[in-house]
Amino acid sequence: MPSKTFMGSVSSPKVDLVVDMGSPLLNLTVDGFLKIGTVAAAKVVVEETYHVVKRGSVSKHNLEDALKKMCKEGAYWGAVAGIYVGMEYGMERVRGTRDWKNAMLGGALTGAIVSAASNSKGDKIIMDAITGGAVATAAEFLNYLT
Amino acid sequence: MPSKTFMGSVSSPKVDLVVDMGSPLLNLTVDGFLKIGTVAAAKVVVEETYHVVKRGSVSKHNLEDALKKMCKEGAYWGAVAGIYVGMEYGMERVRGTRDWKNAMLGGALTGAIVSAASNSKGDKIIMDAITGGAVATAAEFLNYLT
Repeated sequence: MPSKTFMGSVSSPKVDLVVDMGSPLLNLTVDGFLKIGTVAAAKVVVEETYHVVKRGSVSKHNLEDALKKMCKEGAYWGAVAGIYVGMEYGMERVRGTRDWKNAMLGGALTGAIVSAASNSKGDKIIMDAITGGAVATAAEFLNYLT
Repeated sequence: MPSKTFMGSVSSPKVDLVVDMGSPLLNLTVDGFLKIGTVAAAKVVVEETYHVVKRGSVSKHNLEDALKKMCKEGAYWGAVAGIYVGMEYGMERVRGTRDWKNAMLGGALTGAIVSAASNSKGDKIIMDAITGGAVATAAEFLNYLT
């Protein structure tokens, strides 16, 4: 992706925590983790709010449950995003260019890593890598479309 | 997303079929369908190739199977992408601005439509809408990161 779009990140709301790890690779990874983790946590909040509104009551148990879910989903989405951003950045350094193939390779590696980390084996890891690559490529194309 | 990134679509390979439907909304939707459908079809080709290489043989049955899967996955991914692109464009027209909230709302509407179309009911549709919105928002943020 062209670097000129980077300024757009200013428009993301409320996530102003900037952690400087001293390397662009680590910075991007941490940034991805925080931003996407926040999105996932917000998603859980919306889901739980919907449930509470529907049920019309809220208990201490619900709140604890929601908090636990926020941490779990936030960490999971954040980890996947961090790995992906790191991989895509790595691809750019190795390949020396920015194009959709970075997204494809980064997505494939991320799919393989996440799959291996969640105890998948053999063929499943390869399939997840292929799916990861395809999803990342699709997201990249969509981004150019709109 | 800023419109200056649109030129990037030139870098997507081999998908040069341009269909002019006479309206930017329909053009975007068809473009999304074709591009993302192609990605999904390519994903199936890679998956099937991996299976064939592993098994070391290929039969007529495998090929027919792969072709059927390509059409099915291509049409499904393409439809989801087409709906999403159309929704995001619609959001932009209604809201008059381009930012991550378009992605969120477009993703939520797409999630709801796809969920309703696949015979989900009530709460499931709402949950899918929330997930769709969160995924689209996450993809939008990732795009600004890298």
